[in-house]
Amino acid sequence: MAQSNSKGDRGERELVNYLNGNGWGVLRSPASGSATVRELPDVLAGNGRRFFVMETKWESGNKIYYDRDKILGLKFFGHKFGAEPRAVARFDAEYGDPSYGEDWPGYYLFGLDELYITKEGNFRIKKEAALEYGTPVVDL
Amino acid sequence: MAQSNSKGDRGERELVNYLNGNGWGVLRSPASGSATVRELPDVLAGNGRRFFVMETKWESGNKIYYDRDKILGLKFFGHKFGAEPRAVARFDAEYGDPSYGEDWPGYYLFGLDELYITKEGNFRIKKEAALEYGTPVVDL
Repeated sequence: MAQSNSKGDRGERELVNYLNGNGWGVLRSPASGSATVRELPDVLAGNGRRFFVMETKWESGNKIYYDRDKILGLKFFGHKFGAEPRAVARFDAEYGDPSYGEDWPGYYLFGLDELYITKEGNFRIKKEAALEYGTPVVDL
Repeated sequence: MAQSNSKGDRGERELVNYLNGNGWGVLRSPASGSATVRELPDVLAGNGRRFFVMETKWESGNKIYYDRDKILGLKFFGHKFGAEPRAVARFDAEYGDPSYGEDWPGYYLFGLDELYITKEGNFRIKKEAALEYGTPVVDL
């Protein structure tokens, strides 16, 4: 489970910086990306009205998969803390990519029941679904 | 500002474990104890009804000092996120120490306006005040 994930890490920092600069108090998990006893969310954000726990992924392909145990951990932590769980997807694109348009930076949020469940019990988002149905982070 | 603070670190982990085992969703700051651009709280905890940001200190003496910039950072983050800021004090004591009584583990929470302000603009809690006026973590 423990892995070096520099793109994921970079994406997480980018998202945290964006939220932090737009009125959100944000904390990253200290154990993000590494194995721990407790399953901790990547990001916890609040703005005094709404609270989100997030699992973030940045992929170069057109599909993003989330491990079942990560999603279950997100659900559990969110319920305990009192925050809404969100899977966050970011696909490769350069600034100005027309597929993002006004939604830059291109992070899309999904409620857990909006994710496709694979035969293996993991969760998936496709890029076209993200662009069409996801909540752009700029709309939070 | 960056310092190795093994007692503080141990205390923080003890507090996090206690809260986590008692119905709270808890996240420690990844940068806790080290210098960062953003001033981040040591601990962020929620139980679906209340949310706290905490600056924790564990000292062997009878007085605990909190740096002004830490307290200001706590206030700012708490306001932005939507969590109540608390200074948390833990004084040296062994399990069964009569001064703690039923309040073990001996962590006491203070609202920022309950702290004494020193001439230098820092903040202070004395042990006897903690035991008398603080909110024991077991009462959260």
